[in-house]
Amino acid sequence: MIQSLTTALSRDDLARRDAEDPLAPCRELFQLPQGVLYFDGNSLGPLPKGSRDRVLEVTDKQWGQGLIRSWSLHGWIDLPRRVGAKIARLIGAQPHEVLTADSTSVNLFKLLSAALRLRPDRRVILCLEDDFPTDRYLAWSLSDGAATDHELRLVAADALAEALRDDVAVLCLSHVHYKTAALHDMAALTRLAHEQGALVLWDLSHSVGALEIELHGVDADLAVGCGYKFLNGGPGCPAFLFVAERLHDEARSPLTGWLGHEEPFAFADAYRPARGVDRFACGTPSILSLAALDAALDVFDHASLDDIRRKSLAMSESFQRLVDERLPDHRLSLASPADPTKRGSHLALRHREGFSVMLALIDRGVIGDFRPPNLMRFGFAPLYQRYTDVWDGVEILRQVLEQELWRNPT
Amino acid sequence: MIQSLTTALSRDDLARRDAEDPLAPCRELFQLPQGVLYFDGNSLGPLPKGSRDRVLEVTDKQWGQGLIRSWSLHGWIDLPRRVGAKIARLIGAQPHEVLTADSTSVNLFKLLSAALRLRPDRRVILCLEDDFPTDRYLAWSLSDGAATDHELRLVAADALAEALRDDVAVLCLSHVHYKTAALHDMAALTRLAHEQGALVLWDLSHSVGALEIELHGVDADLAVGCGYKFLNGGPGCPAFLFVAERLHDEARSPLTGWLGHEEPFAFADAYRPARGVDRFACGTPSILSLAALDAALDVFDHASLDDIRRKSLAMSESFQRLVDERLPDHRLSLASPADPTKRGSHLALRHREGFSVMLALIDRGVIGDFRPPNLMRFGFAPLYQRYTDVWDGVEILRQVLEQELWRNPT
Repeated sequence: MIQSLTTALSRDDLARRDAEDPLAPCRELFQLPQGVLYFDGNSLGPLPKGSRDRVLEVTDKQWGQGLIRSWSLHGWIDLPRRVGAKIARLIGAQPHEVLTADSTSVNLFKLLSAALRLRPDRRVILCLEDDFPTDRYLAWSLSDGAATDHELRLVAADALAEALRDDVAVLCLSHVHYKTAALHDMAALTRLAHEQGALVLWDLSHSVGALEIELHGVDADLAVGCGYKFLNGGPGCPAFLFVAERLHDEARSPLTGWLGHEEPFAFADAYRPARGVDRFACGTPSILSLAALDAALDVFDHASLDDIRRKSLAMSESFQRLVDERLPDHRLSLASPADPTKRGSHLALRHREGFSVMLALIDRGVIGDFRPPNLMRFGFAPLYQRYTDVWDGVEILRQVLEQELWRNPT
Repeated sequence: MIQSLTTALSRDDLARRDAEDPLAPCRELFQLPQGVLYFDGNSLGPLPKGSRDRVLEVTDKQWGQGLIRSWSLHGWIDLPRRVGAKIARLIGAQPHEVLTADSTSVNLFKLLSAALRLRPDRRVILCLEDDFPTDRYLAWSLSDGAATDHELRLVAADALAEALRDDVAVLCLSHVHYKTAALHDMAALTRLAHEQGALVLWDLSHSVGALEIELHGVDADLAVGCGYKFLNGGPGCPAFLFVAERLHDEARSPLTGWLGHEEPFAFADAYRPARGVDRFACGTPSILSLAALDAALDVFDHASLDDIRRKSLAMSESFQRLVDERLPDHRLSLASPADPTKRGSHLALRHREGFSVMLALIDRGVIGDFRPPNLMRFGFAPLYQRYTDVWDGVEILRQVLEQELWRNPT
């Protein structure tokens, strides 16, 4: 900390941090709108200039000129693997363990199904009771919902360890909680699950690109994640999935589409799964969206996850401190863990009128988001946000609350 | 026919047809490369200029400037339904019966699963033995592959009627065969299936946009289709699915992702399927790719399917006739039905060296494709192809075969 805790944090302090910030040049890699302080990169990252250029190259040159030939000529057919290999570097995986495909939801279905087949003598899918809905809904579909003999066990975070008994086939869990930003201890929970013979499927949607993840370091089994949050791949771009190499021979996808076949272009009669993670491909990937993600990932060539995490923690801590120091009377309460190191890269604040307050903020160019019943979320994306954005954002929040601007939507 | 059958067809005859072609102006709506005769729109349609403009609008304005706000501001959240409604007009469906989502393969899995649940007392999935692989592979995954008590029954085309017995839950069938272009009688087979109490899932990938489809006219149950062939939506753009309104209350998706929830943004604990076809949404749609498809569909505002089919038949018949008249000695044989009205919108020719011949053609700017073991496919896309392209394409084929140019790849 530059600043002693006994002196209030000033905008100059934050400007000084910007001046010293090794990530400051990365901001230039993005096309950011004027007049906006963007605190919602945890929902949708902004447009990388490289993605914009790449999309234009795909339309004009690859699709427009190359036509069908571009599947080989411009490597479309290998793009899901190549983009997967880029993501592998961000999550401590081997290049051939990660594939981009479909949506996070569809990938959850594939890997949950695979996990249940890998543990045929066990019947329980264990999830967090308030985890992101799609994770729970898909687990439900594969248990109670499908009238199988599987069971969906939903528990609170502090009951996870106890619920990890020897009847659990798979624990499916978000690494960072979508509302509170609570960060689970991936190493400890994976170890605990393995001690009970269970697999773990990590949903990295809210952590990938925001902090260091070491899937191999924790001996992870399975993971999925989103491409359009901290990876900045664009709205609805393809998601990714990870399957540890040691599971490659046994893991099977229920979505046996032709592109997961060992030889898709042999148009063979019988389905034979491709080797390794490639068998988790299904249909034809959305090349425009995937190309945008591919180019977006190149931004990470200019930034270390270590620097990203360090700045994220500092921004999040500064935001929290400014709220404490400058908005003490405004009935905001912290819905995230108080210790920044126990959080991902956003902060959730409760306010009785949170929805209206967030609308007033957005109206003034401070873009965060709202999650029911009363949570305002503020994301920190060190690649393009400045420390002074934190000051300016909190300052506008102060005006909105002090002047009760949320009472009069413009 | 302008031309008597006793006189050989000439290039002038075809040029005259171009001059009279009501669809000729549509060619201007596409960005086509110079020096290419494109006979592979049945694999990947070319770039509509409108799609190019739309994609740029989505990157620069919607994603770049609007950021997360574009989900409402630019209607991203409703885009899958709006694009579905556009496709509905092309397949004789009601707007609220069609949704764009995921890939054809993933949608096949959803609707096959739904069909099996709708016929719980039946165990057979009936497919054509040489239908497009992904259809059969996914049917396999839901039967033998998953060790359920379902059975995949694979039969030849001429045995379909007989195989439609009262143990069949669902017949899954391509409307137009991907290799031979054989066109199934949708009305007759649907009626036959219904008489046996079975459902039919039509795969419209090779027919949508190429000929008139009347799903309601034939009392169809379920359908899926591809957006990037005759619909020109771009490489891997989202596919579509159709569920007849009378099945909306009962049909369920196994892929219970959050966007198929009745209230996705309530983040509710329990999964409650959305009304109607919306419950077949799963994860976040790839907006860039979906927007390209959306704009591509506007081309159909300028062309009737009736005109498209008439021109497709005339092109396909001319191609066939020119091959007969001008290449009689070159060991080509027709792998498609001889009657053009029994075909979709491509033609398959067998040649012992088909693979090398197609490479030689592509090398000379005549782009068709090859399907093992020996089929050359030539697609007809009346929106942008000219009648004279047929002459010129066959002429280059003649040169390649006469001079055996395929023996010396450049």
